[in-house]
Amino acid sequence: MGLTYLRPSFRQTVRGMRDFLPEDAWKLRFIEETARRLARLYDYDEVITPVIEHYELLAAKIGEENRKRMYVFEDLGGRKVALRPEFTASIARLVATKMVSAPKPIRLFSVGSLYRYDEPQLGRYREFWQANYELIGSSNPEADAEILSLTGDFLSSVGLKNFMIKVNHMGILRGIFESEGILENEQNTIMQLLDKKERDRALKLAEEYGASGKCLETLKSLFEIGGNDKNSVVNEISEAVKDYPVAINSLNNLSKIIDLIEYGDLRANLYFEAGFARGLEYYTGIIFEAYVPELNIAVGGGGRYDKLINLFGVEMPAVGVALGMDRIMLAMEKQGVNPPKSETARVLVIPVNESTIAEAFKISTMLRRSNIIARMETMRRSLARSLSDASRRGITHTIIVGPKEIREGKVVLRDMRSKSQIEVKIEDLPNKIKT
Amino acid sequence: MGLTYLRPSFRQTVRGMRDFLPEDAWKLRFIEETARRLARLYDYDEVITPVIEHYELLAAKIGEENRKRMYVFEDLGGRKVALRPEFTASIARLVATKMVSAPKPIRLFSVGSLYRYDEPQLGRYREFWQANYELIGSSNPEADAEILSLTGDFLSSVGLKNFMIKVNHMGILRGIFESEGILENEQNTIMQLLDKKERDRALKLAEEYGASGKCLETLKSLFEIGGNDKNSVVNEISEAVKDYPVAINSLNNLSKIIDLIEYGDLRANLYFEAGFARGLEYYTGIIFEAYVPELNIAVGGGGRYDKLINLFGVEMPAVGVALGMDRIMLAMEKQGVNPPKSETARVLVIPVNESTIAEAFKISTMLRRSNIIARMETMRRSLARSLSDASRRGITHTIIVGPKEIREGKVVLRDMRSKSQIEVKIEDLPNKIKT
Repeated sequence: MGLTYLRPSFRQTVRGMRDFLPEDAWKLRFIEETARRLARLYDYDEVITPVIEHYELLAAKIGEENRKRMYVFEDLGGRKVALRPEFTASIARLVATKMVSAPKPIRLFSVGSLYRYDEPQLGRYREFWQANYELIGSSNPEADAEILSLTGDFLSSVGLKNFMIKVNHMGILRGIFESEGILENEQNTIMQLLDKKERDRALKLAEEYGASGKCLETLKSLFEIGGNDKNSVVNEISEAVKDYPVAINSLNNLSKIIDLIEYGDLRANLYFEAGFARGLEYYTGIIFEAYVPELNIAVGGGGRYDKLINLFGVEMPAVGVALGMDRIMLAMEKQGVNPPKSETARVLVIPVNESTIAEAFKISTMLRRSNIIARMETMRRSLARSLSDASRRGITHTIIVGPKEIREGKVVLRDMRSKSQIEVKIEDLPNKIKT
Repeated sequence: MGLTYLRPSFRQTVRGMRDFLPEDAWKLRFIEETARRLARLYDYDEVITPVIEHYELLAAKIGEENRKRMYVFEDLGGRKVALRPEFTASIARLVATKMVSAPKPIRLFSVGSLYRYDEPQLGRYREFWQANYELIGSSNPEADAEILSLTGDFLSSVGLKNFMIKVNHMGILRGIFESEGILENEQNTIMQLLDKKERDRALKLAEEYGASGKCLETLKSLFEIGGNDKNSVVNEISEAVKDYPVAINSLNNLSKIIDLIEYGDLRANLYFEAGFARGLEYYTGIIFEAYVPELNIAVGGGGRYDKLINLFGVEMPAVGVALGMDRIMLAMEKQGVNPPKSETARVLVIPVNESTIAEAFKISTMLRRSNIIARMETMRRSLARSLSDASRRGITHTIIVGPKEIREGKVVLRDMRSKSQIEVKIEDLPNKIKT
């Protein structure tokens, strides 16, 4: 048959994409399984939405920076579609169209891959993975606190020893801008700059948009406020924004949320930063981002978005968090944390020659039906080479299937760690291996 | 803040895409978890490859029909990329570029979403899910038999009561065409027609490509051969293709593979069909497709593809199977099969008024740390309405947190099934609920 080679440039993953080899795939699935276990504990229902959505849906409230980086194209039916750059828009769509009459609150979990055309760098791929939790229908502080608590539990559960959750409230900054008559679009542009910590440019822009001298002073003093001690930070912010009632209300809301976070050690990991903003445009209340000291990118983030579901003409307050699974994997590596490995037996069944292949095949099947991990030697290697293959793979037991033993219904079972071997009746194999 | 509504046409999933609501998502994840458990039992390592790959890689050997239905677009860097329509090309790429020196054979498992612009119909979405197993490096029949056995185990493990695996060998048809001097491209076009069961058109085309009268007669008699009894089918094929030595070799290979499948009841589910072909161009040996009687589309399929990894200049024989997870979900529904449900306790913690919210929040956290599924009432409903919310959600226990009881370190624990309730010390809650 004709053989064509693939050009070398097409033999690699596309720039920004990545493969997870077995060790990494195992870590990513451990993180996913941890996320799902927590979803179960917090009684969140999993939903699965498509990777491809209408461009208009995904673009609606995502912010200019993210919008420019979306994978957008026309499908074969001429529809303008995009690959989801985050989950929340899809979840909002699903809830507004298919769960409007479900009992409130609605707690939803989702997990999967997302796409953004970012410049690839450490911990930033163009295909990335998130575990996502949304609590929809409640506007009370206990809902926000639950999402914060879930975030902390998640980071602890994967084994991270050291993390910090940066917290602020969008209503403090937006409250000030509103009082100054700065339009929502203009606010969004300022928030994008603050998200990138470009505070001087943000101040300049606020001035251009008509912010008063008092407003600029307030912003400047807010940008200085940060710390771990909630009460003292709240007092400082309170003093700074005392002339802006909407900002004061937002601060009180933030304070009530944090007061609920007392149990365990999560409270100690919170850091308040009054100049912190997020790029996604839909946030209306608390916002937060999780960090580990070893990485300068967030490993998770979330907040309250009470107006997003309004895009569908449905009033539903909501709060949620997205955890960056591949970044958390990197954080675990940086902190020397590994998922727990189980000490299960793994068996290699070796036919000593062609005459026992069928028996070896049967024995492999029988072992698996007894819930024992079993592979059969399929390369027709010699016994010696098969045993050395078993060693390099960390196989715990080999079963040597020889014609003489088979005639007596027996095989040789070899413990690869102790190097001891015994003759065993085939039907006794599962018990011998399990003990 | 300004509020814009999303146009109704953008409020739905894109045509051909689907949402999995909680019940369906739970089924799909059960199928995925079953697939992963089997991968572990058969000692396959999981790998994760990206959804986006170079168009040239994905298009190389996939066949004209599938090629036309790929999601192809240019990324922002001007690269011609596509969404994977199947896993095998990506796995071949990964193995040829990153695992060339890994010990053979290489057993790989992958699971995820795939994309084809097909006409949507029952069990056919444009985003679909597969569990995929590849055994790479061995050309022996025991490798093929392992993949067949894995396929059967998978279909049984998800609970399907009734399924059939249709089997053939590409070398029988290709062997005939080769002897007749029909080119590989021409063979591919014929195979596409056979895949769609357009046998008359296939015969006509073979004639146009120069097939002899004897060849056409052979094909016609092959198209008549099918059945469950391996020995009689093999005899019939053997008689039909007796003048084509390559076809005879292929038949012998098929026969050896099947002879290994004896254990358990898989053998009874095999159906041999000598006119059966698959559209993917890379198959070189055994091919098979799994069906349930209730659906006229395959729920899985696979085969041997010894030349695909050659695209990368590396010689590696391989055999694999892809199982259509969303189709299997549909098959389970048609056969009335449900994933097993666990009888775990699920708790709703209800603060009777605002004064006990913080305590209720703490208790919820404490329960989860004791591995008990707990949600807190966050809507500030009345006690009566909270209890009725618990009932409609199938909550097993409610914990009523009142100010008087809290002062004594107690709460009321209500069993929602027996409607009985008792006062319990907070620290005794986990034990009371678990028993």
